[in-house]
Amino acid sequence: MIIQLKKNITLKQKEKILNQLEKISIPARPLQTNFKEYIVGIPKTEFDLRQIGNLPGIDDIHRVSDSYKMVSKKWKLHNTVIDLGGNIRIGTDELAIMSGPCAIESESQIESIVEHLLKNNVRIMRGGVYKPRSSPYSFRGLGIEGLKLFYKHCSQNGIKVITEVMQVSQVEKMLDFVDIFQVGARNSQNFNLLDVLGQVDKPVMIKRGISGTIDELLYSAEYVFSSGNEKILLCERGIRTFEKATRNTLDLSAIPVLKEKTHLPVIVDPSHGVGIRKHVPQMALAGVISGADGVIMEIHETPEKAFSDGQQSLYYEQATKLYDELREIKLLSNRFGYS
Amino acid sequence: MIIQLKKNITLKQKEKILNQLEKISIPARPLQTNFKEYIVGIPKTEFDLRQIGNLPGIDDIHRVSDSYKMVSKKWKLHNTVIDLGGNIRIGTDELAIMSGPCAIESESQIESIVEHLLKNNVRIMRGGVYKPRSSPYSFRGLGIEGLKLFYKHCSQNGIKVITEVMQVSQVEKMLDFVDIFQVGARNSQNFNLLDVLGQVDKPVMIKRGISGTIDELLYSAEYVFSSGNEKILLCERGIRTFEKATRNTLDLSAIPVLKEKTHLPVIVDPSHGVGIRKHVPQMALAGVISGADGVIMEIHETPEKAFSDGQQSLYYEQATKLYDELREIKLLSNRFGYS
Amino acid sequence: MIIQLKKNITLKQKEKILNQLEKISIPARPLQTNFKEYIVGIPKTEFDLRQIGNLPGIDDIHRVSDSYKMVSKKWKLHNTVIDLGGNIRIGTDELAIMSGPCAIESESQIESIVEHLLKNNVRIMRGGVYKPRSSPYSFRGLGIEGLKLFYKHCSQNGIKVITEVMQVSQVEKMLDFVDIFQVGARNSQNFNLLDVLGQVDKPVMIKRGISGTIDELLYSAEYVFSSGNEKILLCERGIRTFEKATRNTLDLSAIPVLKEKTHLPVIVDPSHGVGIRKHVPQMALAGVISGADGVIMEIHETPEKAFSDGQQSLYYEQATKLYDELREIKLLSNRFGYS
Amino acid sequence: MIIQLKKNITLKQKEKILNQLEKISIPARPLQTNFKEYIVGIPKTEFDLRQIGNLPGIDDIHRVSDSYKMVSKKWKLHNTVIDLGGNIRIGTDELAIMSGPCAIESESQIESIVEHLLKNNVRIMRGGVYKPRSSPYSFRGLGIEGLKLFYKHCSQNGIKVITEVMQVSQVEKMLDFVDIFQVGARNSQNFNLLDVLGQVDKPVMIKRGISGTIDELLYSAEYVFSSGNEKILLCERGIRTFEKATRNTLDLSAIPVLKEKTHLPVIVDPSHGVGIRKHVPQMALAGVISGADGVIMEIHETPEKAFSDGQQSLYYEQATKLYDELREIKLLSNRFGYS
Repeated sequence: MIIQLKKNITLKQKEKILNQLEKISIPARPLQTNFKEYIVGIPKTEFDLRQIGNLPGIDDIHRVSDSYKMVSKKWKLHNTVIDLGGNIRIGTDELAIMSGPCAIESESQIESIVEHLLKNNVRIMRGGVYKPRSSPYSFRGLGIEGLKLFYKHCSQNGIKVITEVMQVSQVEKMLDFVDIFQVGARNSQNFNLLDVLGQVDKPVMIKRGISGTIDELLYSAEYVFSSGNEKILLCERGIRTFEKATRNTLDLSAIPVLKEKTHLPVIVDPSHGVGIRKHVPQMALAGVISGADGVIMEIHETPEKAFSDGQQSLYYEQATKLYDELREIKLLSNRFGYS
Repeated sequence: MIIQLKKNITLKQKEKILNQLEKISIPARPLQTNFKEYIVGIPKTEFDLRQIGNLPGIDDIHRVSDSYKMVSKKWKLHNTVIDLGGNIRIGTDELAIMSGPCAIESESQIESIVEHLLKNNVRIMRGGVYKPRSSPYSFRGLGIEGLKLFYKHCSQNGIKVITEVMQVSQVEKMLDFVDIFQVGARNSQNFNLLDVLGQVDKPVMIKRGISGTIDELLYSAEYVFSSGNEKILLCERGIRTFEKATRNTLDLSAIPVLKEKTHLPVIVDPSHGVGIRKHVPQMALAGVISGADGVIMEIHETPEKAFSDGQQSLYYEQATKLYDELREIKLLSNRFGYS
Repeated sequence: MIIQLKKNITLKQKEKILNQLEKISIPARPLQTNFKEYIVGIPKTEFDLRQIGNLPGIDDIHRVSDSYKMVSKKWKLHNTVIDLGGNIRIGTDELAIMSGPCAIESESQIESIVEHLLKNNVRIMRGGVYKPRSSPYSFRGLGIEGLKLFYKHCSQNGIKVITEVMQVSQVEKMLDFVDIFQVGARNSQNFNLLDVLGQVDKPVMIKRGISGTIDELLYSAEYVFSSGNEKILLCERGIRTFEKATRNTLDLSAIPVLKEKTHLPVIVDPSHGVGIRKHVPQMALAGVISGADGVIMEIHETPEKAFSDGQQSLYYEQATKLYDELREIKLLSNRFGYS
Repeated sequence: MIIQLKKNITLKQKEKILNQLEKISIPARPLQTNFKEYIVGIPKTEFDLRQIGNLPGIDDIHRVSDSYKMVSKKWKLHNTVIDLGGNIRIGTDELAIMSGPCAIESESQIESIVEHLLKNNVRIMRGGVYKPRSSPYSFRGLGIEGLKLFYKHCSQNGIKVITEVMQVSQVEKMLDFVDIFQVGARNSQNFNLLDVLGQVDKPVMIKRGISGTIDELLYSAEYVFSSGNEKILLCERGIRTFEKATRNTLDLSAIPVLKEKTHLPVIVDPSHGVGIRKHVPQMALAGVISGADGVIMEIHETPEKAFSDGQQSLYYEQATKLYDELREIKLLSNRFGYS
């Protein structure tokens, strides 16, 4: 049960509601987010809504039968729109495109990408400065200094920055240089990290776990929301299966399923999903017609020289062609009106 | 190695080629298909092509490094087009749509579907008369009598029939009432069935196995081709994974991968792929933009009363809307030109 | 619901029972197996057992809530024992060992293996004469002539033969030369084949499908039983997963789960399960302590020269050591008394 | 390449080796662990060992072709033994048993378990105080205060404590109250956590990821080792597959594969592996005969009242019977001598 509280609710009124919930044995959790105040109740048995429904200070009450609550579509009529400022919003009729290298490698690389993005009117740049690597001996990213460079060039050009955060201790120092925190597939159930990201006022994009279920992804989002941050994006990036002809198995069905279950925007990552450059465009297009609100993709000026993921990074010319196609297919998706 | 033989090759010339192959220790397999004559050679070591290349009777020779040979794209420049007659072809710029019920249930049901297809200019009807069912106590289909009814109504209306064949002994009796034999996911590696289907002159659509790899699907097609039948379609219908929110995990990446590896047309089955009615249209559209040459889908006048798979069958109105959208997206797919 | 009929039931009595079932709207299926007569009823709603319980000719009635019926443990107190004659039985306190090559290759190979088995008191020999192969260009087995040789040497030495049947048309010609029909993983849901094997009076061992669930394996067994053959063995042989360090993922948990759900004997196949020679013995031992009634394994005099599966075939010396260990661990398994 | 350095190596000698490595273009990483000093070299091409082999200060040099180095069996003859003090060692001929509740719930629960362990001569107690839970609304453990109680009762009774650490910030405060840090399946690739655990002198048990490959588990161990901690245990706890009859699919084949690839001890977790109480004992036994050095299992005085995982926790009586059987089967495993 989600109780939306009035903006002007008094402390006394809030106490009264909590007392009443205790009286009827419903464990309750007050929640103050970047947008609003709520009380989440997890009733263990059936109960009569009227026992609390008419208490002062309450804006609205919703029963939510899903075991995730705040991220469920059952209580929130309108889909969440993530506003990044500068007239850049995610979750609208316009497709959000996030494009950039796997890893930030140098200042000149940043400049080259930024130029490419500006030419193509792409407003969000991706790029890793902390890289999760299976082997401790692989390149692990430029770290915070790389991020500062990355952010400087982007912010000067009106481009927003999305980059991966790997651990709690990085959150604070990254905060001023990030527009969207990305939680990677390997950290999709790093609950401590999710808790802390729930306490900042920056959007968080959570990638589905390597073999994470759709429900687990929603639960991970619930961690962030129930810690106070409503600005959440979900990302389908492929799951691990027996098939090895592609890097992962991009589960595009997950997109309409997610769009039905949650009010949060859904992003598709075709680069990690298929992992083969020449197939990335079709998977990106398929993701959009499946209902995705945005696409995150890897590009590189010279993919064959990339520090990582070169085999799945698009050349600039490929990307340029694709941006237009993606925007065209988004119009079609809007017109067909499935999600 | 694939040796294409001249139409007018003499027996003596053929013998000479085979003798020469034996001499240089290359196991050879003569192959007469519905289109052409070949010799397939499986060399175990490197060899000098000139040792056979200039023998009379040879049209062309191709080295094929894949371990499947005849279905590989490496030797055949033009994609295979399946001509069903009546101006209905699969593998062209026009999308092939196969629509119909999971199972043929009655004559009136056939009539209703045929009428719906005619209205929507859909030229191929699907429908099972032999149903593979996990439990022996489930409905197993109307059998050959059902097929005759099915075929009668379709052929009278210029509609082609695709239906599943489950075992060798059914092939002959079905032959006159079928335009495309479908091999189901559970029979995807029923090699005896594939062998026999290689000996008839009717198109065969092979579904990917429940947990079949892309390579295994190509090998299964190789069985049919190497037994003499070049008229083969491949079908992506979802694979089995840990995710249970959808019936299967529709692996749309398999479509561009297949289109790159083989010259055979690829069909997408969104109905079994996602298994949830409301998500079928988006998956169908995504399949087409991924490069599919056709779509096979389940429809029913009253899905809630269907003998099987009702939960994934579209209502007529949904299907009608979808056909137009599919055709529109196919135009886009052609224009983008990825596969 | 399973109605066990008396041996001396009259036709009239049987009719009366079927009429009564029809009257109370329970679809019924009379079933005559190699052991007994039954009527299987699939009630769609709750019903009162007394409405049929006291009719003459009935031996016993059991409600079975599982959707598979005859193979369920819920109605049959005693585990099924497969008697192969010659004092060789499977499903007793003694471990059944089936050992032999992947494929029958030659008469001298058969003789060599038989000698090895006799020395080690192993009473069942495995060996394929019809080999399901992904590629049509691989060795497909010696066929029926190979089987006759195989059977001749074994029967002369009191050794029983288990071999794979791949299609319906093979059943009759193999019948006289086989002691146990094996249904391979790729045919685990070849329902026509299962139906026909239900009509012969020879034991049938069904392998779990490549990505078959435990329930699907039980349903496949139900096909055989409900067609008239109670002599069924189930075989765990590994499932397909993302892990590629082993050929398959041997799912040993399936053994106690199966032993709890069904009265049929369960065999473990460590050779295909792990696919790496040096790890086969430990997986065989683990299978037995998990509750397996038997082990089927691949051996070869010179594995490096085997036509197929050499990498997972044991040398004779390894096998000899393992047989003793397996028997010792079976004693322990009996003493611990878990299944 | 692993260069083992002499105990008495001088700074100058070390510098010389590093200089020489730089000269021949081999990236090198000096490494000081709780046991020894090494230099790890990651050569990119073939090189001549003699170019460094005779430098003073070097104890031994090994080429390791695996991409994980320090955890590979290729350079270390003897298996690693983890000495917990009090004559409790893991990785010897004696089986290590770790038994206890899923979560620490109360002091009286701790006392009850400790008493049970003492009676059964079990020397390591498991129990979670930080619980990773999919849903933020589930019980998340008693935290550090629970750990102090847990440790107090155990240390007073000569019992060692293994418990899960979930994030970097917990490591320091847990340090004095833990004998083995456990890294859970969801944190198996939390590389920052692994890095930090490499800097403490306490054993670390890493669980295989929910869909982690065997190689990824070894890489995770390489993170810990290459940060300075050689005291590592690996744990097979089941992987996620399509089969839902069991909680996970316990991959026992992973045990001999791991024992062949690494010198680290391997523990099996049958409780999470199968997730069904009655099948836990057989899976535990199977794990030991597969070569496991230890077993970690969940027990509870009244499993039906457990805060979490009750369905897979053994009753005391079951556990008591199982401990003896496990020890007996370990003797057999030693005698058979496979790993």
